[in-house]
Amino acid sequence: MAAPAPVPAGALRAVLKPSGPLPTESLPVRGYDFSGGPDHAALLRSFRTTGFQATSFAQAVAEIQRMIAAKLEPLSEEERARAALGGRRPPSGCTIFLGFTSNLVSSGVRETIRYLLQHNMVDVVVTTAGGVEEDLIKCLAPTYIGDFSLRGQDLRRSGINRIGNLLVPNDNYCKFEDWLMPILEQMVDEQETQGVRWTPSKMIARLGKEIDNPESICYWAQKRPGLVLDIVEDLRLINTQAIFARKTGMIILGGGLVKHHIANANLMRNGADFSVYVNTAQEFDGSDSGARPDEAVSWGKIRMDATPVKVYADASLVFPLLVAETFAQRADAFPSGTPGD
Amino acid sequence: MAAPAPVPAGALRAVLKPSGPLPTESLPVRGYDFSGGPDHAALLRSFRTTGFQATSFAQAVAEIQRMIAAKLEPLSEEERARAALGGRRPPSGCTIFLGFTSNLVSSGVRETIRYLLQHNMVDVVVTTAGGVEEDLIKCLAPTYIGDFSLRGQDLRRSGINRIGNLLVPNDNYCKFEDWLMPILEQMVDEQETQGVRWTPSKMIARLGKEIDNPESICYWAQKRPGLVLDIVEDLRLINTQAIFARKTGMIILGGGLVKHHIANANLMRNGADFSVYVNTAQEFDGSDSGARPDEAVSWGKIRMDATPVKVYADASLVFPLLVAETFAQRADAFPSGTPGD
Amino acid sequence: MAAPAPVPAGALRAVLKPSGPLPTESLPVRGYDFSGGPDHAALLRSFRTTGFQATSFAQAVAEIQRMIAAKLEPLSEEERARAALGGRRPPSGCTIFLGFTSNLVSSGVRETIRYLLQHNMVDVVVTTAGGVEEDLIKCLAPTYIGDFSLRGQDLRRSGINRIGNLLVPNDNYCKFEDWLMPILEQMVDEQETQGVRWTPSKMIARLGKEIDNPESICYWAQKRPGLVLDIVEDLRLINTQAIFARKTGMIILGGGLVKHHIANANLMRNGADFSVYVNTAQEFDGSDSGARPDEAVSWGKIRMDATPVKVYADASLVFPLLVAETFAQRADAFPSGTPGD
Amino acid sequence: MAAPAPVPAGALRAVLKPSGPLPTESLPVRGYDFSGGPDHAALLRSFRTTGFQATSFAQAVAEIQRMIAAKLEPLSEEERARAALGGRRPPSGCTIFLGFTSNLVSSGVRETIRYLLQHNMVDVVVTTAGGVEEDLIKCLAPTYIGDFSLRGQDLRRSGINRIGNLLVPNDNYCKFEDWLMPILEQMVDEQETQGVRWTPSKMIARLGKEIDNPESICYWAQKRPGLVLDIVEDLRLINTQAIFARKTGMIILGGGLVKHHIANANLMRNGADFSVYVNTAQEFDGSDSGARPDEAVSWGKIRMDATPVKVYADASLVFPLLVAETFAQRADAFPSGTPGD
Repeated sequence: MAAPAPVPAGALRAVLKPSGPLPTESLPVRGYDFSGGPDHAALLRSFRTTGFQATSFAQAVAEIQRMIAAKLEPLSEEERARAALGGRRPPSGCTIFLGFTSNLVSSGVRETIRYLLQHNMVDVVVTTAGGVEEDLIKCLAPTYIGDFSLRGQDLRRSGINRIGNLLVPNDNYCKFEDWLMPILEQMVDEQETQGVRWTPSKMIARLGKEIDNPESICYWAQKRPGLVLDIVEDLRLINTQAIFARKTGMIILGGGLVKHHIANANLMRNGADFSVYVNTAQEFDGSDSGARPDEAVSWGKIRMDATPVKVYADASLVFPLLVAETFAQRADAFPSGTPGD
Repeated sequence: MAAPAPVPAGALRAVLKPSGPLPTESLPVRGYDFSGGPDHAALLRSFRTTGFQATSFAQAVAEIQRMIAAKLEPLSEEERARAALGGRRPPSGCTIFLGFTSNLVSSGVRETIRYLLQHNMVDVVVTTAGGVEEDLIKCLAPTYIGDFSLRGQDLRRSGINRIGNLLVPNDNYCKFEDWLMPILEQMVDEQETQGVRWTPSKMIARLGKEIDNPESICYWAQKRPGLVLDIVEDLRLINTQAIFARKTGMIILGGGLVKHHIANANLMRNGADFSVYVNTAQEFDGSDSGARPDEAVSWGKIRMDATPVKVYADASLVFPLLVAETFAQRADAFPSGTPGD
Repeated sequence: MAAPAPVPAGALRAVLKPSGPLPTESLPVRGYDFSGGPDHAALLRSFRTTGFQATSFAQAVAEIQRMIAAKLEPLSEEERARAALGGRRPPSGCTIFLGFTSNLVSSGVRETIRYLLQHNMVDVVVTTAGGVEEDLIKCLAPTYIGDFSLRGQDLRRSGINRIGNLLVPNDNYCKFEDWLMPILEQMVDEQETQGVRWTPSKMIARLGKEIDNPESICYWAQKRPGLVLDIVEDLRLINTQAIFARKTGMIILGGGLVKHHIANANLMRNGADFSVYVNTAQEFDGSDSGARPDEAVSWGKIRMDATPVKVYADASLVFPLLVAETFAQRADAFPSGTPGD
Repeated sequence: MAAPAPVPAGALRAVLKPSGPLPTESLPVRGYDFSGGPDHAALLRSFRTTGFQATSFAQAVAEIQRMIAAKLEPLSEEERARAALGGRRPPSGCTIFLGFTSNLVSSGVRETIRYLLQHNMVDVVVTTAGGVEEDLIKCLAPTYIGDFSLRGQDLRRSGINRIGNLLVPNDNYCKFEDWLMPILEQMVDEQETQGVRWTPSKMIARLGKEIDNPESICYWAQKRPGLVLDIVEDLRLINTQAIFARKTGMIILGGGLVKHHIANANLMRNGADFSVYVNTAQEFDGSDSGARPDEAVSWGKIRMDATPVKVYADASLVFPLLVAETFAQRADAFPSGTPGD
């Protein structure tokens, strides 16, 4: 305990320093009271006053709710007209960028992402080529739950690939090759005979049409040009989406180039209005993955007056719960689309 | 994507290696389907097949369910008789050790811990002196939600102490001193005049009685000798609890000495039967905090045939949800006690 | 301490379990003995028997020494002839891939990387577009040492960008634009008038020539096609480098796409022979960045009989020391090149 | 790269924001130049301008150099007289507290710690009971280098305990029991017949005398009361050391109670003057282990005007190098003691 009995006056003064006022509107810490039974919704609301990452979770819920509220605000006539003049689809009140690394597509977070796309809840989706590939492969054959400690040698001998505690039979990749090759050949034909210029987002749309499977992220992206972006190109498209948005929100799961490209696009508009990062990376090694939102403020990638949130947790634990408390609560405002909408 | 078009045969063989059988009973990865709306219970069940730490969470739920099932198994007559002979309370079918660091008492996780004690859901609670102190202080004045980035200099000038994103006015510690000192003096009296021998657990029970506040962890521990242990002593008591238990379960939130002492006590019985760790520490620096359960198996602190689980996450996010899916589902089997039970 | 005095026989047997033989060739733990003064070379050698990440460091030194030894083995006549037939430069005995994220180019690790290129100590260098950009910018104006806790708002108002504890005046990026734009225009001209087909590696070589500064990584890459690859393209080139190598070694600093692409290229040859990862990412979230080398074994990206090493540390601390103990000890074998070699 | 060609004026202004002045005395980033060969001392000096944790390492070197300079400042006559009046040894100009977790004693960092004690370079050493035990055990039988991935079941069957990548045969603990028991019995005798009151630090001194082995940390602590403190008691002694010190420095390796107790003792003097933390824990979970030095400033455990440093790295990598650049450079000022000094 803090102070043993007889200490000199200076020590006492140091230990017993009186307090001044707290920052305004400070909430008392108070966790969930189970005496009324396990009410999940109330429990998740209690995270606001639970502290540590529970509080960060609650702050992320509030930030995403602000994104949604901004998104649902009606556009003015002038805004619609200006978009029409520019030949662009009228933007929603808030253009929401969703980024995720490919491992999350391998995981069951894919179903949550697919739901957001199916209902047009997000506007721009950014992932890596691996994210696209894993989505399509899962339409051909399942990925399995394994264990982090399975031995690489044993797995390689069995032709089973490990992604964390997931297992992907190598046959799945072979099936993907067999499925992909004729399509690629046809696309080359179309390029040569019809002059089609393929970009990653056009290619993703095409693959989504070919896979023709409503469980696929790519399926829901087809005919919505720019809805799923492979980060390696389409840079101008993503930047344009940021520049001409009324407001923007960023929801970024994981790090790497996905995080970089979404934030960089928002530099073009002098910063995103709303931002939620979910990842486990730390800032001490100077990595972009681990950079706190405040580093993005210094670059102008997040607005100076914004209230960005980083949740330090694996997205598999946190993102389905975040969606349950935000988008899924407003499902009425987002009717399910059809791939050809 | 994995393979570009024309590669030599060896490369193709490496890439297209055929798969053998998966580990038996491998479950396909599949996340929560939001199309039926946000059903939290179903969402948390879907974590089993979501992968990464969502799967670890589901495995922790299953491990705690096994602890509870073992705990509720009736004792045989012989076991009751043997305990009576030894002058011990008859053990439950599974003696559950709950350990937590003091910061979790500062946070709203305290309310979840208090619930478990109030209902006798756990048998031995191990924390540090700081854990006991923070519990009592919160009966005298609140702790507040703050922010990780508040400046130390500013806070010190205002006499406000920071614990992560929590704020504790230094006045709270002064109030605690004022409350504690007369009690300590009386305890010294009792020692000198009545020959009382104070141990940490006896002292905690006394403080719990004095605070007389049902929000307190210590309040619920009073008159249940050994229910809350300050790790710095009471070592023989905790070891005895482990040795004479029919089965044991460990639920350890955070690291440090709390984790060490619970695991060490279970060495005395050749290993715990059930184990759940929740922390963010890593093994690479050889710390006991970061050691995986498998390191404890090498020491005989966890049984060789056990199925221990580590969830890599901040306990503030995970532990209330774990309790919601386990103990709180069996509240019928654990009637609320009174401090004097 | 482990055992209190009087415990039952079962507890004693558990605690006092006798030991069998250790894994063969186990070295006793023994740290550096300062009694002879601080001899850095001896101190770093003592890391082999120091344990934890010090031992991982020593294992990384040994793994890189194996890469170098393999690299310096002479090629057979047949190998030279085969390369000549294929129109390829004869490979070195071990093709070493060096990957790094852009933040390391912003840091002083850039000087270590430049040394390795200047002396042809590595064969293929893989980084992101940001890595190339930061290298060139540092030829135009310096990056500064700052602090992780400088406020984003204050910095943005001053037009100063933060990268961890580094500061880059935004003016540096403006200077870069001014420098780059005329070159890009000229490159477009050459494409249109001379039919030049620009790839990232060709473009990097050109920029290296234009910057004409021996402190630059890109400067030393010019006229060595494929020596610095922007990961976003040049995939076929990197794969070919892996497939036709006699042996390969991977040295990967940081995570993200750089790590993925080097490992994926080595899948094409059924696995790298030697591998060193240096990063701070963890495996528990299933990220490719945090994946241990053993996950790459399951994919065939590292050979089953290899001895890969991961050092869990910030590369700024570790990589200069790794180079000091490996490549820099064999400087005689690697004469400094000229950019036009 | 940052900006594609044609963007609206607002985007350009955001991207091309001009810079104001940098914080004063900002150093340009510049890493080690290997062109003169690997000069370890120069390389480690270059860490100052390398960035990320290399810079933190250099800042830690500077902070420890300030501790040593303060320590070597002569005391005034008055200070000597006051100490004599109080019956205390005259303090050094700076009382240096060194704390470490027990795993570092199991590792080769023990040899570095022993060197510091042998030469009276530090004043108060704080560790856990495990730290004391591991030190003594290593005098009886060696600990071995193993691997993080050795299986717990296999090791348990062989009676080999794992600590990260270290292996300790269980026989070593049996030898320790055999060695310890007769000494404990004798100590009980002395308590009963001579009225000796054993405290942890007295007990450690006694065990150091009994082990009689100059490789032991405890050996060098004997007859220097208070030089090695088991954190579980001796609280008043450690607090007194802090209160009556002219200045204090803290060097804390790892987290947990060791970190807490040293910092708490320095609260009694309104904060340590100099502080270096080396650990891998993070602040996001609100743990005391992961708390940045700035959190300790809020509590008054570190002075508001101090320049504390945290190095985010495994101490096995960093601490021997830190000592090489600091204490070992001033070995002349710290003659080797004898245990009976």
